[in-house]
Amino acid sequence: MPSISLKGKAMPASPIRKLVPFSDEAKKRGIKVYHLNIGQPDIETPANVLDKIRQTDLKVIEYSHSAGIPSYRKKLVEYYMKFGIDVKPEEMIVTTGGSEAILFAMNSCLDPGEEIIIPEPFYANYNGFSMTSGVVVKPIDSFIEDGFALPPMKVFEEAITPRTKAIMICNPNNPTGYLYSREELELLKEIVLKHDLFLFADEVYREFVYDGLPHYSVMNLKGIDQNVVLLDSVSKRYSLCGARIGVLISKNKDVVSTALKFAQARLSPPTFGQIASEEAINTPDEYFRVVLAEYHDRRNIVVNSINKMEGCFCPNVGGAFYAVARLPIDNSDKFCQWLLEGFNYNGQTVMLAPATGFYSTPGRGIDEVRISYVLNVNDLKASMKCLEEALKVYPGRK
Amino acid sequence: MPSISLKGKAMPASPIRKLVPFSDEAKKRGIKVYHLNIGQPDIETPANVLDKIRQTDLKVIEYSHSAGIPSYRKKLVEYYMKFGIDVKPEEMIVTTGGSEAILFAMNSCLDPGEEIIIPEPFYANYNGFSMTSGVVVKPIDSFIEDGFALPPMKVFEEAITPRTKAIMICNPNNPTGYLYSREELELLKEIVLKHDLFLFADEVYREFVYDGLPHYSVMNLKGIDQNVVLLDSVSKRYSLCGARIGVLISKNKDVVSTALKFAQARLSPPTFGQIASEEAINTPDEYFRVVLAEYHDRRNIVVNSINKMEGCFCPNVGGAFYAVARLPIDNSDKFCQWLLEGFNYNGQTVMLAPATGFYSTPGRGIDEVRISYVLNVNDLKASMKCLEEALKVYPGRK
Repeated sequence: MPSISLKGKAMPASPIRKLVPFSDEAKKRGIKVYHLNIGQPDIETPANVLDKIRQTDLKVIEYSHSAGIPSYRKKLVEYYMKFGIDVKPEEMIVTTGGSEAILFAMNSCLDPGEEIIIPEPFYANYNGFSMTSGVVVKPIDSFIEDGFALPPMKVFEEAITPRTKAIMICNPNNPTGYLYSREELELLKEIVLKHDLFLFADEVYREFVYDGLPHYSVMNLKGIDQNVVLLDSVSKRYSLCGARIGVLISKNKDVVSTALKFAQARLSPPTFGQIASEEAINTPDEYFRVVLAEYHDRRNIVVNSINKMEGCFCPNVGGAFYAVARLPIDNSDKFCQWLLEGFNYNGQTVMLAPATGFYSTPGRGIDEVRISYVLNVNDLKASMKCLEEALKVYPGRK
Repeated sequence: MPSISLKGKAMPASPIRKLVPFSDEAKKRGIKVYHLNIGQPDIETPANVLDKIRQTDLKVIEYSHSAGIPSYRKKLVEYYMKFGIDVKPEEMIVTTGGSEAILFAMNSCLDPGEEIIIPEPFYANYNGFSMTSGVVVKPIDSFIEDGFALPPMKVFEEAITPRTKAIMICNPNNPTGYLYSREELELLKEIVLKHDLFLFADEVYREFVYDGLPHYSVMNLKGIDQNVVLLDSVSKRYSLCGARIGVLISKNKDVVSTALKFAQARLSPPTFGQIASEEAINTPDEYFRVVLAEYHDRRNIVVNSINKMEGCFCPNVGGAFYAVARLPIDNSDKFCQWLLEGFNYNGQTVMLAPATGFYSTPGRGIDEVRISYVLNVNDLKASMKCLEEALKVYPGRK
């Protein structure tokens, strides 16, 4: 029997999914599990998008252009213009989810063994894509005490080696919810230009910013056009996770023409998803006002509730719909498993993501969890109550 | 300005697409171009599938399970049963097109630098996926004189090195249309077992077989369960290329659990495409009878027409909707470009794929072209007439 690849053996399993068997077991025992572990929003997809799909009058579901349906790319120009981002259709490769945009960026810009610096904690699947492409992730520390702000320039400088080829950020951040300021991005620009690096920016949560804070895009930085690669997705923006549509954007023609070769190999992004995504750009602003108000309330519930729990800390969050909280626990993997296996409060419990999965440095995140506030306000309050009660009785409480 | 990766530089551009600018130019000059260069069928998607999409009543387009919607995988069990293939939902990973199934198979089973033997000519994108995953393709010769039959065992034995990890076939074959016999597959089984290799089989054209010939699947081979990885797709079967739904199937649990890790990293296959593909399995047999009769006629037109042209040879084709023909030309790349740039017959011309793009050995395929018979009978006859007239006046005729 032939053995699988070493790459396959080393490939990390999803830290978000590894507790699923335990939550399935809990449900079988009749326990209600509040899922705060996943990034699947409960928000409805805009009605105009679903209507558009129902009106599909195609006769043949053909391959689209490998770089995406031209009319969709044109429509994206209009979308980005609203954020003062001036891009052309030929500067875009429509991808199968933001996931593929990340993979294309890594494959196009970095060779196996080359390094990408990412402040940790970071979106766990960056590990998977770097493993797939042979790229080495060099994590640098960001800290819960600073709300996970951008590490100082000195820390970047120390991490840069001759093999460093790129820096990657997620803004607003998954898992921390941190929103990078314009000043922080200007600092990044200096490092990137000084060392001639690519800057990959995952901005899929662009619209999800709170307290009236502005979102500043890497595409708005001046003089760094040739270094910047924007990675984007419709998944969270329009609650279209299953459409699997993202985009890679760069003013660097070599990057786009190289990404196109990877795009041609997989033929095309999904047609139905592109139809949905093109229509999604017509979604009325009112939809976002309602959604944002909802997330704003949820964020307040999570951050305020946790900070009221004894020994807990959750920095305020500027964007996205995640927060990382520090809890008085011995081990977040054990704690999250125990919540499903060994605890319930009035027949209810909560499923969280251990933050260890979002760090690549062993040992970090051991007393932290990621909370996705993707439940309605009442369920969210109930789940915070569960967490509070759980912490009172958890055997591994510190 | 940072430079792109060496991998990106080495990544081959699509041989099918590289002539597109020339066909665009020809169209601008008012010339009608018959496209026999691409694998995009003109056949309508089954009506029940399109109806199903129009009846979508989802409120949130969520991520599906990373291995595919459970009801779709159950339905696939039913589909494969019709071919005497006994598989379980947990032996499947639903993928984003057959493309992703190939990539997952390579990433899961082969490490960078390990070798996969593929009879050439082969589907050009296997090169792209091997480049992406760092896998080395070792082509072995199949010949137009034999109709591109499986090379003899001796040739496989000579190609096997300590780094060989897999053999890959496409059955029926793209680009040759060759249908492997049961006897050939039994030979492959012996080699695979003797050298403990994986056997990847791309069977996306399973239904497209002619002259009443049977299709024998690698999944029907006995005693080779742990070696076989089936790669499949709905694209051609139901004219659902744009749905981007494929599947990787193996009885080898390590392969499936490893592929699942790659699948989790990219979250999920497209939801709309899976809904369409699940319904597609209900497509009445009548649909295939009509489609197959149509392709049968087309095949006869192509094969007969070409064999009547002076100095030309096209082996008869057992399946798929491709044929490779040998023409009396100096260089197929030049010839195919000239057809678009320098020739027309009554304002019409034909676009073919140079076969060079389907060989990885330099120089092979230089007097061969791939013809996809994806046009209706009348257009196909007109395009054969164009080819005949073109060969009479082509300056590089041998």
